[in-house]
Amino acid sequence: MRILILGGDGYLGWPTAMRFSARGHEVSVVDNFSRRRWHLKHSTGSLTPIRSLEDRIEAWRELTGREIRTFVGSMEDGAFVSRVVEETAPEAVVHYAEQPSAPYSMKSRETAVETQYTNVIGTLNLLFAIRDRVPDCHLVKLGTMGEYGTPNIDIEEGFIEIEHNGRSDVLPFPKQPGSLYHLSKVHDSHNIHFACRIWGLRATDLNQGVVYGIETDESADDERLITRFDYDEYFGTVLNRFCVQAVIGHPLTVYGEGGQTRGFLNIRDTLQCVELAVDNPARLGEYRVFNQFTEQFSVSDLAALVARSAGDVGMEVEVRNFPNPRVEAESHYYNATHTKLYDLGLRPRLLGEELVLSMLRIIDRHKHRVIERAILPTTRWKPGELEGEVPAPSGEAGG
Amino acid sequence: MRILILGGDGYLGWPTAMRFSARGHEVSVVDNFSRRRWHLKHSTGSLTPIRSLEDRIEAWRELTGREIRTFVGSMEDGAFVSRVVEETAPEAVVHYAEQPSAPYSMKSRETAVETQYTNVIGTLNLLFAIRDRVPDCHLVKLGTMGEYGTPNIDIEEGFIEIEHNGRSDVLPFPKQPGSLYHLSKVHDSHNIHFACRIWGLRATDLNQGVVYGIETDESADDERLITRFDYDEYFGTVLNRFCVQAVIGHPLTVYGEGGQTRGFLNIRDTLQCVELAVDNPARLGEYRVFNQFTEQFSVSDLAALVARSAGDVGMEVEVRNFPNPRVEAESHYYNATHTKLYDLGLRPRLLGEELVLSMLRIIDRHKHRVIERAILPTTRWKPGELEGEVPAPSGEAGG
Repeated sequence: MRILILGGDGYLGWPTAMRFSARGHEVSVVDNFSRRRWHLKHSTGSLTPIRSLEDRIEAWRELTGREIRTFVGSMEDGAFVSRVVEETAPEAVVHYAEQPSAPYSMKSRETAVETQYTNVIGTLNLLFAIRDRVPDCHLVKLGTMGEYGTPNIDIEEGFIEIEHNGRSDVLPFPKQPGSLYHLSKVHDSHNIHFACRIWGLRATDLNQGVVYGIETDESADDERLITRFDYDEYFGTVLNRFCVQAVIGHPLTVYGEGGQTRGFLNIRDTLQCVELAVDNPARLGEYRVFNQFTEQFSVSDLAALVARSAGDVGMEVEVRNFPNPRVEAESHYYNATHTKLYDLGLRPRLLGEELVLSMLRIIDRHKHRVIERAILPTTRWKPGELEGEVPAPSGEAGG
Repeated sequence: MRILILGGDGYLGWPTAMRFSARGHEVSVVDNFSRRRWHLKHSTGSLTPIRSLEDRIEAWRELTGREIRTFVGSMEDGAFVSRVVEETAPEAVVHYAEQPSAPYSMKSRETAVETQYTNVIGTLNLLFAIRDRVPDCHLVKLGTMGEYGTPNIDIEEGFIEIEHNGRSDVLPFPKQPGSLYHLSKVHDSHNIHFACRIWGLRATDLNQGVVYGIETDESADDERLITRFDYDEYFGTVLNRFCVQAVIGHPLTVYGEGGQTRGFLNIRDTLQCVELAVDNPARLGEYRVFNQFTEQFSVSDLAALVARSAGDVGMEVEVRNFPNPRVEAESHYYNATHTKLYDLGLRPRLLGEELVLSMLRIIDRHKHRVIERAILPTTRWKPGELEGEVPAPSGEAGG
């Protein structure tokens, strides 16, 4: 199958590219290296010493004999997106090419505008390219569980049947996300749903939980293939950051009550889910939503798990509660349905001490690269509040 | 009160500016003349011979002795928006400054991107300016009834109580809009709701129906004060266009079954509603939605009303059904709640033959200005379908 992976240089994009290439698919990747550029601007970087995209692709070719084609350019450039889609004529597009950080989107007017512009306009350009060049192509789009927020009812997969005044309809699940980044994904979802309803395109919106982990089957073979691993204020997700904090002897930073509950999954399960979506495409005209996570945890649960695992190998780890720089409920009802990917055959790798220990081992190998300054948050959801030093956020950056 | 009107050169913006100025408020207007520019690009224009913004303001000063301050610039320019909000320190902002046409948004990738960029980023810039400069200011934002689409249940005002699996919550009403323009308003609504929830701003989102009419109390006094009146494919709304068609002897163009039902209101009632919203502001932190229309009609109802009214004064009018260039249900359930503005005191001017006759009279005065070429639609919701000549759309441009 011809598969186009947008954001193919990223944390999930690169492992996805290798996975589909290993399966014998004809893989092309697009990236404009935004993530590397954002890190340069903040003098931060990946914990893992990642290679350039061309070096990775060369190493992959050397090891497997397989080719991955690259296109360097931005999703905001509609003519570029159209040309790439025309040249590669994909049967499936996997779209990771978005600004993925909640704190980054809340930093300033400029970063908020950049986030919504990049994400919403990029996806809009893609929808037009698919409509005009490859209308049968299956769009697999990475959304986020954060689109739903924390409603006081069970969260369904994208749609909910509503009975009202004696009539009923199945309608999009209402969204109350917690950051301007999460909002950009809500906007994308509405635009993609429209493209399916009106133009007859087909799409799967993967509302993904918070991803943890480093290694995948393909990357484990050769250090040159390792994916990026972020632990900084902007791009680090909560479990990944706790593991780095444990290794460098920094207290695990839990905000407020730590009762914030979210869905989580292993990076290997991200690949499995994306593959299941591609192998079982939506029908023409169908917009379907899968809630892509395997387990729910509270932030306190995760801190306790990391502390326990690290303790087992002799690391002394402190868990500390701090005032929350985000505006979010710290204790709330949370129960999200996630059966559709299981129905397609998902076999999850659940989180346990063993996985945490393997992460701690890899992090330990690279701990000399940790930039401690990058862990402490500077972004407040409400500027002016909580001035003074507040340690790393506990919420769901990149989820 | 200090009131800032964004889009103050427009069909509704200019009458709104006069209305608040007449009431003794300190009014400033912002515009970048996008609407005039879009017309120039298509060699079309307002039926009414509108003056330049400065000429209108001079005429208003001459007639009333009142000053209206102007700022020329774009909402996409965040620094400009921030400077205007700082200089005018408004207690209320009335935000009309958006690309308001569904067909224009569906014309091409470029116009779709322009629409969502202008509307979403413009509103985002405004939210940051209010947060940082005048956090107590009341934002009155023009949304559209088209955000809801045509669900099979009663439409509520912005929020709906949902019972699900034994629990319940009041959540945003699900949205399934019918064009990329309407989607931009859905995105705005989510962003504004967020700004109220997280930053504690206050906003009223006026989900307006399709507006008809030309004259308002203030404009009737002097021809120099008349507002624009669009009847073209892009910016003309359905009843206004039917009236122009009747005057020039063009058949009234009903698409498909003509059962498309929408909410409508008189331009004088738009002013009344905006004034009620400003006079009764939302609480700090509150995001409230008013469904702003006075009556529901199907497209066939409106065509019949115009034909009957025109017939009474001896005009021969034909109503003709044509294939629909839009993708929309032509026969559907539609029942939208609209009590909140009535609770604040709205006294509607309902639609009848008298109003239609007064529109026909004004249009007749300017009928030599009608550019007939501009009436026939060229934009298809699904390109490639319905090639060949299709007359003017019946749906809800600018609603």
